[in-house]
Amino acid sequence: MFTPKTADFAERVRESFARQPVMKTCGIELVSVEPGEVAFRLRNAPELTQQHGFVHAGILATALDSACGFAAFSLMPADAGVLTIEFKINLLAPARGESFEVRGRVVKAGRTITVTEASATEGGKLICTMTATVMTIVDRAGVAG
Amino acid sequence: MFTPKTADFAERVRESFARQPVMKTCGIELVSVEPGEVAFRLRNAPELTQQHGFVHAGILATALDSACGFAAFSLMPADAGVLTIEFKINLLAPARGESFEVRGRVVKAGRTITVTEASATEGGKLICTMTATVMTIVDRAGVAG
Amino acid sequence: MFTPKTADFAERVRESFARQPVMKTCGIELVSVEPGEVAFRLRNAPELTQQHGFVHAGILATALDSACGFAAFSLMPADAGVLTIEFKINLLAPARGESFEVRGRVVKAGRTITVTEASATEGGKLICTMTATVMTIVDRAGVAG
Amino acid sequence: MFTPKTADFAERVRESFARQPVMKTCGIELVSVEPGEVAFRLRNAPELTQQHGFVHAGILATALDSACGFAAFSLMPADAGVLTIEFKINLLAPARGESFEVRGRVVKAGRTITVTEASATEGGKLICTMTATVMTIVDRAGVAG
Repeated sequence: MFTPKTADFAERVRESFARQPVMKTCGIELVSVEPGEVAFRLRNAPELTQQHGFVHAGILATALDSACGFAAFSLMPADAGVLTIEFKINLLAPARGESFEVRGRVVKAGRTITVTEASATEGGKLICTMTATVMTIVDRAGVAG
Repeated sequence: MFTPKTADFAERVRESFARQPVMKTCGIELVSVEPGEVAFRLRNAPELTQQHGFVHAGILATALDSACGFAAFSLMPADAGVLTIEFKINLLAPARGESFEVRGRVVKAGRTITVTEASATEGGKLICTMTATVMTIVDRAGVAG
Repeated sequence: MFTPKTADFAERVRESFARQPVMKTCGIELVSVEPGEVAFRLRNAPELTQQHGFVHAGILATALDSACGFAAFSLMPADAGVLTIEFKINLLAPARGESFEVRGRVVKAGRTITVTEASATEGGKLICTMTATVMTIVDRAGVAG
Repeated sequence: MFTPKTADFAERVRESFARQPVMKTCGIELVSVEPGEVAFRLRNAPELTQQHGFVHAGILATALDSACGFAAFSLMPADAGVLTIEFKINLLAPARGESFEVRGRVVKAGRTITVTEASATEGGKLICTMTATVMTIVDRAGVAG
């Protein structure tokens, strides 16, 4: 659907992802990268939960925001970085499972502004959805997420 | 401004906060509780950052969402819990400092729906703002945040 | 996908739509009703525009919010009304055409809270997207939109 | 608080407002302009209502989005226009009165992105709140709202 501007877009996403310590803290792994689309796995762990053992909404937001940011980043030119301007998340069901599939994708890629969306599911059940607006930053180091 | 429904509202917030492992993981401490308002401190740490040493937007969201949830929780009856329905965050400046002051407050407390807002600042500089919608849950264990 | 709770769900939507004077003011017509999904047509007119002849974002929001509200309303019991709690809209392209196809659909129908989404397109081109949270109101007159 | 970039900022806002036919359709009048802040009056009328005589949420959004856009526009250079990227509105109480005071103000003015907020009140009672993200557009005609 989208045509990447660099041949090594997937490698660029993987390298940027690997440089983010917070991904490990939050139990987030990169599963796949396509042009304008990424998939993560988010693993539940006691240190990510509120008092009922559900993953905290902010940790879900960390995963979905990053999925949105990297989906946008996969379509950007080599000298560009990505900055999240805002995101909104709707929480549909408690995140009580062992792990969650997180998907982010580009809805519209503009020159300056890219609109993205993401979701987390558990065994096909929808847990939460996000829309995020990200900005392309040129002449700065890549700021993904 | 708001009148709490329980005499021990601050203690209830402190106890619920203490039962959330994710608060420690994210370097979030409870500073103060007033009726309909809470203050946190969020401390930067390498494991909370993206590749430039800034606190990840999702970690900020974890703090602000919790501040919104506990601000709402401080006004609820003894048998009630709070559930976040949705939140939106706007990111205004990079979170590059050592620590951040996070404040959440109730905008309108309804019987079922409470509208809240929160912000993070660093030395008076605005880093991000949130609006969150939370729901009062009765006859379930308290689900703050 | 969704099972309506009333046999006359489509008629109930049509009747509620017809009682909303603002729909006519904004050039919005009801095209179709399915369980959990509605389609509108929004016609551009000089009185709906900002200074460049594009439909104002607030008029687009009027159409999409109503599409979300009626999509939710189509799944509700006979004695229930629907109240919008909040919505967010992302504006992707100028609304410069003669008319727009608006679609709203339910993402998750809960007992109290229903999460919905909507979009406007023009000849297949995405103009804007919305997520809206609506609440089921019982024992009040139907408050759609 | 904010320093305008043009001496005639208020006049520029008034002229741009006057060129928007939708303002009249929605019963919106410009009351005052300060640097980074505008006030409107929104008058209720049968053609702006849903079936209960309350102003439709989308019409409120039209007023608040415009208040946000013009608040941002008041701080922009002479050759710039403003484009709304996204907004979110929370609806706190039914808009059943005769008229409403609408205020929009800039939270942070950036070079490209400006974050704004707005509210509508009726006799001091809060009806709804908005956060909106707007973009400065240079070398195009002013696109306020």
